[in-house]
This record gives sequence, C-alpha cells and structure tokens, in this order.
Amino acid sequence: MRGKLFVVGIGPGLIDDMTVRAIHAIERSEYVVGVDTYIAQIAPLLKDQIVIESTMGKEVQRAKKAVTLAEEGHTVSIISGGDPNVYGMGPLVFEFIEASSCDFDIEVIPGVTAVNAVGALLGAPLSSDYAVISLSDLLTPWSEIEKRLGNAAASGFVIALYNPRSRNRPSQFFRCIDILRNYRGDVPVGIVKNGFRLGQEIIITTLNSVMDYEAIIDMKTTVIIGNEESYIWKRRIVTPRGYHKKYEY
Amino acid sequence: MRGKLFVVGIGPGLIDDMTVRAIHAIERSEYVVGVDTYIAQIAPLLKDQIVIESTMGKEVQRAKKAVTLAEEGHTVSIISGGDPNVYGMGPLVFEFIEASSCDFDIEVIPGVTAVNAVGALLGAPLSSDYAVISLSDLLTPWSEIEKRLGNAAASGFVIALYNPRSRNRPSQFFRCIDILRNYRGDVPVGIVKNGFRLGQEIIITTLNSVMDYEAIIDMKTTVIIGNEESYIWKRRIVTPRGYHKKYEY
Repeated sequence: MRGKLFVVGIGPGLIDDMTVRAIHAIERSEYVVGVDTYIAQIAPLLKDQIVIESTMGKEVQRAKKAVTLAEEGHTVSIISGGDPNVYGMGPLVFEFIEASSCDFDIEVIPGVTAVNAVGALLGAPLSSDYAVISLSDLLTPWSEIEKRLGNAAASGFVIALYNPRSRNRPSQFFRCIDILRNYRGDVPVGIVKNGFRLGQEIIITTLNSVMDYEAIIDMKTTVIIGNEESYIWKRRIVTPRGYHKKYEY
Repeated sequence: MRGKLFVVGIGPGLIDDMTVRAIHAIERSEYVVGVDTYIAQIAPLLKDQIVIESTMGKEVQRAKKAVTLAEEGHTVSIISGGDPNVYGMGPLVFEFIEASSCDFDIEVIPGVTAVNAVGALLGAPLSSDYAVISLSDLLTPWSEIEKRLGNAAASGFVIALYNPRSRNRPSQFFRCIDILRNYRGDVPVGIVKNGFRLGQEIIITTLNSVMDYEAIIDMKTTVIIGNEESYIWKRRIVTPRGYHKKYEY
C-alpha cells in the first residue's frame, strides 16, 4: 500500500482548538510521531495508533522516523504545536522527504499558531500588518534577529515574539525590549503564558513596564508588542483597523 | 439573560479547516452575522440560527448589529474569514463594544489565517520569521505599506501579501514586487488563489517571473515571497529551518 504522511498542526493545546482536518488525520493514522508534551495534548484522539514520542531536541530523529514509516507504506501523522510551518516540524520533514524515495503522499495540515491564539486571548491586537519573530538563536544568528526586531519596530508592525526567553539565554529578552524601545513609545504589551492550555496566564502591560514580568516569561509564553495605535481597554489590547479615520459611526 | 458575543474566525473556507471551538460557537448561537460569502461557507452549520448577512464593505453595520444583539441578551456569532484578528472583524467589533453597555460576555475564537493555510499548501515556506502585509491602502496609507515591504525584505523575513491586487488599484502589486526586487534575488514565490476552497489554484514561481501571473492575482489570492534561503522542490517551496547548519543527518 502507498504510504501517507500528514504533517499536522495541532494548534495551541486543546482538542477544541484543532481543526477538523487535523483531528481526522490523527484518527486515521497508524503511527503518530511527536514530542511528548504534544502527544499528551492529543491523548483523547489516540486509540489504536502506535505512538512514537521523544523529547524536545530530537526533531531530526522524529522527522526521519516519520518519513521512513511513510516510505514503508504506512499512514503517519507527525505532529507539531500550533502551525507545522511556524518554527515547527514542516521544513525539517521536507528536508528528509527530499532525500527519500518520495513514493508516498504528503499532506500538510495548517493549525492555529500562537500569534493568532494569543491575539484572540488579548482581544484584538493584531488588526494591522504583523511580524512574527523567534528570539531563539539556536538556528538563527542573534545579529539577524536584532536586525529584524529593529526593522519591524521601525515600520509599524505589531510584533509577536515566540520563544521569548529560556534559561540558556536569559539576557536576550531584555536586549530585545531595549531595541524595541528605541523605536516605540510606551505601547501596549500582552504576555500570554500557556495560552488555551492548563495554567493560562494573561498579563497586559506596556513596553516600559514589561521587564517587571520578566521572571514569568519562558518558552511557553508568547509576547505581543502593539504599534503606536494600539491601546489598552479593560484588560484587552486593541489595534484599531483604521475604520475610524474612514467612516463616522 | 446575559448576552454572549463570539467573534469567530472561520478559517480559509471549508468546515474541515475550522476549529471545533468555532463550530460549536456557531452551532449554539441564536444569531449569526457575516458577509454573504462567509455565510455561504458555513451553511452546513446553520439550522435554527437567525442569519444576518450583508455584502463586503458593510463591516461597520455588521459590527454594530452584532454588538446590539449581544447587549439585548442574545448569543451571537459574528464571523470573519481566516482569523478574526487578521484584517478581520475583531478590532472593529471591539470599537463598538467599548461604546456599548459592555453588559455581555465576549469570546474571540482564533482561526487559521491565510498565511498559514497557504503555507501548508505550498509545502514549508514559513519556517523562518515572517511578516504579514496587506497591500490594501483603504485603511493604511500606501507610503506606510511601502516602508513595511522594504523593511521586511531587507531583513530576511518571509513575506505574506494579503489583498495583493484589486480592480481599483491594479498597479500596486507591480510596485510592491519592484520594491522587493531591490532587496532580494530571484527567490521563490508562491501564489495561491482560493486556498482550501473551490477553484483552488497553486502557482510556484520566482520573484523575476511573478508578474507573468499578474492577471490571476486578486483579492482571493495570497502571495508568499520566500527569503534568500528558500528553494523550490517538486512544486513546493521550502525555507529550511537551519538544522542543516547545526546537525549532520
């Protein structure tokens, strides 16, 4: 039988925030491959599937294993938190597919990524053009990340920071905020930890005060920096879309 | 009874690509408010709900109506294509909520927005930091859009163009591509029209050739511009995540 490889975005955390397509792919797979924390999130969908889980950092092995199983004719889901393209398994899986026989079908299933999940929890911070930036320099040089932060901040993008702070690089978050302050006033900042997951925390603050919350910011946190038009309204952040300039209402 | 207002992202088009949470919100609503094309997309979910539909351009009236119904104690879903925050109804609805009694509950439900939907259809173009830019200058001055295009292109962002071309502003797409060419070589470009909808078209090209496809590009199209590391592989675009620099495999 011809194999099938689903590259599945499982969204922010709960089954409720997955798409129907993602749920069906996992349900019909013989094998489900993923990092242990994401496998735990989709546990209610697991029945007869064979689960291959490993820890964070074993991305290369997981991608290789999933491709090998599909080559052997199996139906396989390799899962990725949020959207599989956004700092997820998608690109790495394709690197292994290219090196394979390619004798199987591939389907990438999009999911709700953190910027949109967190945007919803904060209210409506994202209406304008936005930039998604990871502060992890494991795979991107820090100098490039700094350049992106500056360029995005200089041109009115709402900015979403993924992987904002880890134990191994505690000072980069401060450096990032410092760069953003060169370009922006005291704009609204939303901090969401464990968005749509157990232990959800939402903090609404501003660029001048965000460092007060540094200690709670970790790899499970997403930070959204408003632009000069964003404002705080009753524990929410709104970036107006501009209709108020156009219409009277 | 206390009203409830759901601001619902319905994803790219099919029910299959909606989240479970979005489906449930619409199913339990007394009123569903939306633009006619999106109401048609969720038709399979409509049973006893009262549907209030209007045409594109009537956003202000729809937002006002949905807020008024929630104030009156009803359960209301106002729907938005993709994610409700991304060039959607979210921010506008909040502007009306602020002016209301606020005596009802509000829940924003995120959805898969075009950049992620189209990213999945193209393969894995998005692994790196990315910027989402609308080319519509209805609510944002064109000079600002140009600045964002230049800044994003100068700093390695993968770029997603929403609303790339309309009949009323046919020349701006060319101007945009011209700006991007100042910063990037002949990088991969993916054009997706009606992604995950009837009439889906996928074109893989490059920055030097993209104007050959100008005629098919419209408001139902999303365009993704790769960065200098992106490459084309068998009708797909891949932006490597950088593991190849870090690991041997």
